[in-house]
Amino acid sequence: MVVASEKFNLKAYLAEKQALVEAGLDRCITVTYPETVSESMRYSLLAGGKRLRPILCLATAEMLGGTVESAMPTACALEMVHTMSLIHDDLPSMDNDDFRRGKPTNHKVYGEAVAILAGDGLLSYAFEYVAAQTKGVPTDRILKVVIQLGQAFHKLVCGQVVDLMSEGKSDMTPETLTYIHNHKTSALLEVSVLSGAILAGATDADQSKLLKYSKNIGLAFQIVDDILDITATTEELGKSAGKDLTAEKLTYPKLWGLDESRRQADKLVAEAKDIVSIYGEKSAPLMAIADYITARKN
Amino acid sequence: MVVASEKFNLKAYLAEKQALVEAGLDRCITVTYPETVSESMRYSLLAGGKRLRPILCLATAEMLGGTVESAMPTACALEMVHTMSLIHDDLPSMDNDDFRRGKPTNHKVYGEAVAILAGDGLLSYAFEYVAAQTKGVPTDRILKVVIQLGQAFHKLVCGQVVDLMSEGKSDMTPETLTYIHNHKTSALLEVSVLSGAILAGATDADQSKLLKYSKNIGLAFQIVDDILDITATTEELGKSAGKDLTAEKLTYPKLWGLDESRRQADKLVAEAKDIVSIYGEKSAPLMAIADYITARKN
Repeated sequence: MVVASEKFNLKAYLAEKQALVEAGLDRCITVTYPETVSESMRYSLLAGGKRLRPILCLATAEMLGGTVESAMPTACALEMVHTMSLIHDDLPSMDNDDFRRGKPTNHKVYGEAVAILAGDGLLSYAFEYVAAQTKGVPTDRILKVVIQLGQAFHKLVCGQVVDLMSEGKSDMTPETLTYIHNHKTSALLEVSVLSGAILAGATDADQSKLLKYSKNIGLAFQIVDDILDITATTEELGKSAGKDLTAEKLTYPKLWGLDESRRQADKLVAEAKDIVSIYGEKSAPLMAIADYITARKN
Repeated sequence: MVVASEKFNLKAYLAEKQALVEAGLDRCITVTYPETVSESMRYSLLAGGKRLRPILCLATAEMLGGTVESAMPTACALEMVHTMSLIHDDLPSMDNDDFRRGKPTNHKVYGEAVAILAGDGLLSYAFEYVAAQTKGVPTDRILKVVIQLGQAFHKLVCGQVVDLMSEGKSDMTPETLTYIHNHKTSALLEVSVLSGAILAGATDADQSKLLKYSKNIGLAFQIVDDILDITATTEELGKSAGKDLTAEKLTYPKLWGLDESRRQADKLVAEAKDIVSIYGEKSAPLMAIADYITARKN
């Protein structure tokens, strides 16, 4: 088993990168007329969160010799896409959620119409921001990121549709469960890693390896999410806990049991770390982030 | 006053280009699992319509020496953005419309959740499609189109928000009316022309001229829309007629009267034709399209 460098301080690393991402996100959107929609976009975009997707993008870019500066617009765009998917998923006609990250959901504050439009605005702005703000990177790589981001979002949409179709059905197959997670959760984590790699000029071989790394942590992430839904409190999660149980949703703990779910998540993370270990010392952040996926409490 | 070449057959031109656009749009989206969302996207994208935005893009590109092939992905993307804005505008929490282009609106057929997601999917796909499918054009121009499309969509969102905020208010100022039209209608017509110009390698001077052309036809288009809302029947429009009167909305006919509104639209179109007349014979399509804006019956 590969162990992350003991010298590497993940907590300090995440804190440093989170601060950079928060500052980057804060610069993205200025409040202009009509204020309600830019405020609504900022409300959800700056509501905290782990910023896992932007950090994965920055960490991968840096591991392959890229810079934080050149990857930051894409990092921010990933968070915009993630945020808009949460805003729309929370809508009354979708998951009908009142709280997100411990705060009232966007439509609870700004109303449904503005929440839909703020989500639309964030989605479109994500593409514009990558195209307009990425500096010092060949244009063909920037176009590739735009394409990858579009493909990932398409998967998000498909995942959400299948999730909605499966609601309340007690006969969900394990294949459907995997489909939903691959599309709804993993796809954006994958493109977070891949886009960082593309911006840094990764070879096809590098991209394949990193795709495998990201698929593993994507699935591990979802298994842990399912575990936390059972074991954590609403306060710890900042969103309603136990929702999956109430909704009679198929989850990995239901499929495998809690212990086996944890074992599977640990195995996926170990494999992911093994993959990036070939990058030596520089892989310390991606190794530690993989560990963090299973160790996290929310 | 500049007159369009008498030899130019606009009807045949529009029919030819419409057929190309319809075929292009039909190729864009294939029905894959989960079928409901791709079917929902196709339902609205292939629901007919004038295809004015794609045709403006193709016509401008060709006028400046570009090809239909290289502009077609952008032309389709413009229609995707236009279509998704209609799907979301029609939602119960927005304009709450039951009919569009003579057919039940998207959410009436597929439900609200899928309609929102289909709109999201079309928006994201528009950017992806431009980036992935545009061939034979330098990548920096493709990136510029992505940026322009993003900026135009941002205006659409702002226009819709101000439109919603103004609803039922009898004290709308002419400035607000102009803001809504500039953002909700003109912005996408402008980028339709500009993106065609950019793809064909237009100079900054060309782009400025064509921006003025597009702003004029954009405003004329909206004035004519307001006139038709009063003078045309629901059958002719394919959507509810007289809506503005019922909604006590400020419109150009209310502001200026019907005759003066027509005069203003004609003047804007004459100016627009004057601008593109410098491109000689090749400007025939853009000249005729400008005329069509005021002559149309729906």
